Amino acid sequence: MTRSGDTKCLFCSISKGNTDAFRVFKDDSTLCFLDKRPLFPGHCLLIPTVHIETLNDLDQETLGTIFRNLQLINRAVEKAMEAEGTFVAINNRISQSVPHLHIHIVPRRKKDGLKGFFWPRNPYRDDKHMRDTGKKIKKVIKQLC
Amino acid sequence: MTRSGDTKCLFCSISKGNTDAFRVFKDDSTLCFLDKRPLFPGHCLLIPTVHIETLNDLDQETLGTIFRNLQLINRAVEKAMEAEGTFVAINNRISQSVPHLHIHIVPRRKKDGLKGFFWPRNPYRDDKHMRDTGKKIKKVIKQLC
Repeated sequence: MTRSGDTKCLFCSISKGNTDAFRVFKDDSTLCFLDKRPLFPGHCLLIPTVHIETLNDLDQETLGTIFRNLQLINRAVEKAMEAEGTFVAINNRISQSVPHLHIHIVPRRKKDGLKGFFWPRNPYRDDKHMRDTGKKIKKVIKQLC
Repeated sequence: MTRSGDTKCLFCSISKGNTDAFRVFKDDSTLCFLDKRPLFPGHCLLIPTVHIETLNDLDQETLGTIFRNLQLINRAVEKAMEAEGTFVAINNRISQSVPHLHIHIVPRRKKDGLKGFFWPRNPYRDDKHMRDTGKKIKKVIKQLC
């Protein structure tokens, strides 16, 4: 595997034009195409053209570009599909069907049937459990800054 | 409602310190705190400190900042929670419980029970349906560029 392309990666193959996909947008470092098994028609996937696995692996330049483009695609999907809203999601490793970073942009409508997807919730045992969890994250953020 | 704060908005109230939340990160234009009803413990919400409703409404400067911070928080949540991956999501209007842009950052593990959340899929009727949909989106992207 190299950064410029994993020979076994489906999205690298799409990026290079070796595998078919309906492309809706392309620039120097990103590509957006239709998901072939959409949550709803108009469901797009926005990817870096080079092989980057997860959000954590994005370099700063591509990160800036891909999220600027995310806003553009999000506006376009909503308008083109006459949607009432959108769902934007990134699965990093878990539930990530293709190990090449992809941002889902999905048009949404009221009562479209996805209402329950954000459940079940797993509550904190008590306030202490919440505070301890928060402290752990805060500590690591400081280490990473 | 003003850009600096909607008096009825829960997240503006958290941003101003009028409503309690466990804060894990703050800078000039963004704030990150624990979701009180987490999908899993460590579930964070990253918001712009001023009242911006959806991804489409973000100005370029805040957009750059919030997604740079998203990567930082994502790395930290994964590390602090010893997770195997993460789920990052934005609900724009539909399923958006608080009308103030918030990015969910959720730690994930194999077999954590969220496996089926990305279903059901609603396939294209045929290739033409897919192409027509793609063309509509492509056209609007060009108009917006």
